[in-house]
Amino acid sequence: MKRFLVKVLAFVTDKVPAISRKVNRLIINRLVNHVRHRPHPWSTVHDYTSWTSLTDRKWSARHLPAKHLERPKHDRVEEFFKRQDQRLSPKSTLLFPAFAQYLTDGFIRTRMPEAGEPDDPARKQTTSNHQIDLSPLYGRTPEQTAALRLSSEASDKRGRLKTQVREGEEYAEFLYDGTQIKPEFEVLDRPLMSDAFAGNQDITSRLFAFGGDRANASPQVAMMNSLFLREHNRLASMIEAANPSWDDERVFQVARNIAIVLFIKIVVEEYINHIAWGVRFIADPSVAWNAPWNKPNWMTTEFSLLYRWHSLIPDVMKWGDKDYPVGETIMNNKPLLDVGLKRAFVDMSAQHAGEIGAFNTAAGLLRFEKMAIEQGRLCRLASYSDYRAYASLKRPNKFSDISSNREVVSFLEGAYERVDDVEYYVGLFAEDLEKNSPLPALLGRMVAADAFSQALTNPLLSEHVWHEQTFTKEGWKVIIETGALRDILDRNVKGGLSGDLFIGMTHPDWKPS
Amino acid sequence: MKRFLVKVLAFVTDKVPAISRKVNRLIINRLVNHVRHRPHPWSTVHDYTSWTSLTDRKWSARHLPAKHLERPKHDRVEEFFKRQDQRLSPKSTLLFPAFAQYLTDGFIRTRMPEAGEPDDPARKQTTSNHQIDLSPLYGRTPEQTAALRLSSEASDKRGRLKTQVREGEEYAEFLYDGTQIKPEFEVLDRPLMSDAFAGNQDITSRLFAFGGDRANASPQVAMMNSLFLREHNRLASMIEAANPSWDDERVFQVARNIAIVLFIKIVVEEYINHIAWGVRFIADPSVAWNAPWNKPNWMTTEFSLLYRWHSLIPDVMKWGDKDYPVGETIMNNKPLLDVGLKRAFVDMSAQHAGEIGAFNTAAGLLRFEKMAIEQGRLCRLASYSDYRAYASLKRPNKFSDISSNREVVSFLEGAYERVDDVEYYVGLFAEDLEKNSPLPALLGRMVAADAFSQALTNPLLSEHVWHEQTFTKEGWKVIIETGALRDILDRNVKGGLSGDLFIGMTHPDWKPS
Repeated sequence: MKRFLVKVLAFVTDKVPAISRKVNRLIINRLVNHVRHRPHPWSTVHDYTSWTSLTDRKWSARHLPAKHLERPKHDRVEEFFKRQDQRLSPKSTLLFPAFAQYLTDGFIRTRMPEAGEPDDPARKQTTSNHQIDLSPLYGRTPEQTAALRLSSEASDKRGRLKTQVREGEEYAEFLYDGTQIKPEFEVLDRPLMSDAFAGNQDITSRLFAFGGDRANASPQVAMMNSLFLREHNRLASMIEAANPSWDDERVFQVARNIAIVLFIKIVVEEYINHIAWGVRFIADPSVAWNAPWNKPNWMTTEFSLLYRWHSLIPDVMKWGDKDYPVGETIMNNKPLLDVGLKRAFVDMSAQHAGEIGAFNTAAGLLRFEKMAIEQGRLCRLASYSDYRAYASLKRPNKFSDISSNREVVSFLEGAYERVDDVEYYVGLFAEDLEKNSPLPALLGRMVAADAFSQALTNPLLSEHVWHEQTFTKEGWKVIIETGALRDILDRNVKGGLSGDLFIGMTHPDWKPS
Repeated sequence: MKRFLVKVLAFVTDKVPAISRKVNRLIINRLVNHVRHRPHPWSTVHDYTSWTSLTDRKWSARHLPAKHLERPKHDRVEEFFKRQDQRLSPKSTLLFPAFAQYLTDGFIRTRMPEAGEPDDPARKQTTSNHQIDLSPLYGRTPEQTAALRLSSEASDKRGRLKTQVREGEEYAEFLYDGTQIKPEFEVLDRPLMSDAFAGNQDITSRLFAFGGDRANASPQVAMMNSLFLREHNRLASMIEAANPSWDDERVFQVARNIAIVLFIKIVVEEYINHIAWGVRFIADPSVAWNAPWNKPNWMTTEFSLLYRWHSLIPDVMKWGDKDYPVGETIMNNKPLLDVGLKRAFVDMSAQHAGEIGAFNTAAGLLRFEKMAIEQGRLCRLASYSDYRAYASLKRPNKFSDISSNREVVSFLEGAYERVDDVEYYVGLFAEDLEKNSPLPALLGRMVAADAFSQALTNPLLSEHVWHEQTFTKEGWKVIIETGALRDILDRNVKGGLSGDLFIGMTHPDWKPS
């Protein structure tokens, strides 16, 4: 009966825009209201509310205050994640984790300790701008943005980002000149693992000069940033043509306005709709204008953990005709440069992602699970059970309330004295997946609440900014016509995409159950 | 009839708290809704909406976009402000400008050009934290706050700010040691005009180590900061006694939470109620919780100009038995140290302030009027007429629509070709005062909209922070019991205040007409 109603609802909302918008508003409000509205009373700086916790945004905010938890019975809890038999997701293609990583690297930015610096307080802090601002493309600071822009004196083109063309394909410039970072790019955040690859010119010679320190982390992420790089320059060229009197600065700024909004549209209309099922969300900015939850964004320490979806990454990925074990893709842009952007998107859309959950993280990524568990302890997060209650879900009374999987239950029993001791990060991934969704319940609920309340409150979507004047007539048209990565890719690869090429996050063979 | 209704309303709302709260909410919403809600589409960085204009808060936001205005017929427009016969305000005492200056110096902070630096872009920028955060007391940055705090190792007292005691009176420490700023205070913003007084030890030897670079600008402002300094230390001592296990940091932070909220209560319940008439506003945080105008604060370039109330300062002020011409009070803390804090407040409450408006700025302050006019031009502000329309007021059709004062009209006619050319800053102060208020209409409307939407959206007043736990039981009681500067002064001067001592912004002889 419920299935039937959902289908009827989906049908009606698809056909009648006015109803569709009302349902959209209703459901988004419901999803956001599952958790407490911002401002958060606490951050990682103090265990109590202080002016610093309310204003100093270099600390991560927190949904729940610090709490003492009983430590697990043993110190190998990360084995909970260790992949046994690889499980693939029937629903998600590899485009899903590629986009998720690109998206979250932009604003979930735990500060990495400098060499010799202890984890505390570094890992309680963040380098985030706390906005969806395409910082992997544009950088985090005005100085970084300037370094990435093509000088208008050196070129007759206005508003462009620096690029190179290789075999007819437009990419970012390379970061290194031999073994050295080019002086013009010194101001950029260094790629995160670049120290580990110092001297390995197979790797360093192909690193791109990107705004984000994680945008070279894997060829899938570099692929995503390359797409938005091309789109930015395409938009700049369009704006320049339509407004011959505008200077370099204005062409750049307006192209950026459009690019950020395109990105947010894809977050809501492709990415969230892939996660959800039954309703088709639309990126309607007016939902947020008068909403009580429209309060300044501030990334939380909980959000930084819940988005570590390592199990989405399969052991092996295909780029063109070649198989790459996951270890060989780290910081390696060769697969992308070899196949080019179109083929990269086609390949990522043709392969299944891994399934989120226990016992499904590739061996090479297991150390990141350990780091996540340790970060949760460092920040003294409340228990998984506390977060269930916080998100208006039932607390588990026994371990078997968490999962229907006997192996999962048995691991948890072996690791924790009581069900209330289960840690947030472990509990998140211990739950069964929601029907027709790639995510389990608590994870899905916290993702949805934060995603909508952060994406739709972007200042470019605000009441007195969201109009044609901010984006130009041409830009506004592009915004209206874009709802998926495919739309953007189509206009940024030679000859466009033929109609039968599948580009998407939801595998074409998948059927809802 | 209207007078009668206002009186009935005032009577009823005074007697029935539930009605009072509803009326309060209704009127505050109406006042805030006279102007557009934030986020502002523009800042002083670009003439169009850009990601920078929406996010880079070192630029001033703007209510209206940049516009080309016809220049006035002559370049002596500042003479519009030149005091002829001093007019005193029947309503306002000198406590009103003292508080107004102290309040606004905390967050209206046009960036001053460095030596040799041009005005553009410096004066388009701001060093504001964009919050009512008592930065004159605590500093603008964590490093400044640290420099102002008493080290808990050097003392058995917790959570205190550094002070000295002189003749039984508690003041901030002095900033200078001989002709040098003490090394511990190097990190503070230098007092604004300290270069002009370099070598003048009569002045520099009495400058206080304050958080704010304008808090030494006059003894009235130093008086205000000294009051909140004493109150902070009193609160810290109270919290320490009630919570013997708390460390220095927590005692400090919670005392600061309380002090900031006390300050905001006085902004609404004493200061705004002095400006307004007919309704008694209460600082009810819940008014803002779900309001569509609860959006992040961002100081505007218009706000930074409209608050330059130089004409409130009379030619001569009495401190104790001595008359001080205004020029002798600049950067001079001697009058305050001579009479002490109690007498200073009594004296400021006994004298009439000047009246806001044309031809009433003391000669010594006229150069600040010229700077304000130039800043308006630098930022290419729209016209006075445009701001009337923006604030839902009628545009003037002719010069005599602006003022009923023939001299004012005649000056404007001599200065501007058309009524639409009248500059914002001049027009603001050309209007007649509102009945029973110290402010004219447009000025009052813009002050009210910004004041409420900035004060009540303070994070300490937010829905999940505004409770006893944030302030302690003792702190909460202090908050409830404080509604005026008199309340704070009473507990911070020896022997308190006897009942017949008047401390207030509204002169006791004043009667509404």
